[in-house]
Amino acid sequence: MTYCVGILVRDGLVMIADTRTNAGLDNIATFRKLHLFQKDGDRAIAIATAGNLAVSQSVLNLLSEGIKNPESGEIETIYSLPSMFKVAQFVGRAIREVYRIHGKSMEQQAASFDVTMLLGGQVAGGRLRLFMVYSAGNFIEATADTPYLQIGEHKYGKPILDRAVTSETGLDEALKLGLVSMDSTIRSNLGVGMPVDVCTIRRDAIAVDISHRIDRNDAYFADLRERWSAALRAAHQAIPAPPYGRD
Amino acid sequence: MTYCVGILVRDGLVMIADTRTNAGLDNIATFRKLHLFQKDGDRAIAIATAGNLAVSQSVLNLLSEGIKNPESGEIETIYSLPSMFKVAQFVGRAIREVYRIHGKSMEQQAASFDVTMLLGGQVAGGRLRLFMVYSAGNFIEATADTPYLQIGEHKYGKPILDRAVTSETGLDEALKLGLVSMDSTIRSNLGVGMPVDVCTIRRDAIAVDISHRIDRNDAYFADLRERWSAALRAAHQAIPAPPYGRD
Repeated sequence: MTYCVGILVRDGLVMIADTRTNAGLDNIATFRKLHLFQKDGDRAIAIATAGNLAVSQSVLNLLSEGIKNPESGEIETIYSLPSMFKVAQFVGRAIREVYRIHGKSMEQQAASFDVTMLLGGQVAGGRLRLFMVYSAGNFIEATADTPYLQIGEHKYGKPILDRAVTSETGLDEALKLGLVSMDSTIRSNLGVGMPVDVCTIRRDAIAVDISHRIDRNDAYFADLRERWSAALRAAHQAIPAPPYGRD
Repeated sequence: MTYCVGILVRDGLVMIADTRTNAGLDNIATFRKLHLFQKDGDRAIAIATAGNLAVSQSVLNLLSEGIKNPESGEIETIYSLPSMFKVAQFVGRAIREVYRIHGKSMEQQAASFDVTMLLGGQVAGGRLRLFMVYSAGNFIEATADTPYLQIGEHKYGKPILDRAVTSETGLDEALKLGLVSMDSTIRSNLGVGMPVDVCTIRRDAIAVDISHRIDRNDAYFADLRERWSAALRAAHQAIPAPPYGRD
């Protein structure tokens, strides 16, 4: 399992991903799922992946090594494309290319071709954008109405986002809320685990702002968890007792 | 979809259930899923149901109408059994009886025989207990380590319970937390909806304490939702800003 969340607010973008992979409860490992593609001043792009690890690693390799554009004959990479929309299309093409090579054989072995990616960032001259790319290579984009996108085990961490995140939320607040959402998921699902990778990209900076791995000894994350739990206890205690009786 | 939760704490039991049933998004209805079986001083039992409505309604009818005990030849009902453990076994037998009558035909029509029940309450002379009964008729019991059980769409409402509920939580607090858990689920999943039925049973009272239906106009529930959202906003704002930079 996996949990990744991207939050796009007025001031920038937050991307958070766990690192646990598993093929059964008895086969757990740590793999980075949050990947940065950056050239300061030109582009700052983050991709978070969920699904089959062999598929997502192949896709990431294609994004860097490039795919030949059938029309122009040129090799395109995630660093050469001129806009985030073109990058989203390119990620979709890379997924379809991996399907072309491995998809049928995987299905013959009853392995599902299962991959989902969050793609966020900004290319100079364009807007900061956040997409979710599906295993068919098609994609959707986050908007002001729904400023966050999730992949993997999304349910445990959704209520806090639904209650507190809007496109007007500050970047630090969005990061804190994303961390609470991740913490809720880690507490409830063994398939999602530490360390957690986070990154932020400020709008129009065309550079990665924060890029950090939170491990088990991270003092800030431990404090955030403790403060959050204490605040929730105080919050429900402050609500008046239910006035209900027998109807 | 459905969401029901039972919380067993030192002072008593909370049971909460939504009322939405659906056969597809375009076929939504309201049915009570929380059912009380009470005879003050003798027993106070609550059952919440999830899964196929035809199955759960048949089971509930059998619980009241009774099933012949193959050994004694007597008709047993939920009102005649001498302990909560015997009631849990009886609910399991009722589920298996419905499977015996309808299971094969349902499978022929590609309808899955799918039912889960929360069974909580106390029979005079015994302890207040909370069980989850599966579609095979077998069951588990809540303990001090895990004082709550959920059926249906359980993921959205689990984090708040994991963070805040222990067996030492007060009964009013448990009810408030159960309502927050239900609210989180309703906000995130259209398959779970108002009105919401709640009941509480105080330990050793052998009587239902609260039995109430929360509808859309319920002022207390609206206030709880608003206070909770406001408290969460204040909580994340009170957490210091992340100190992270580029590793």
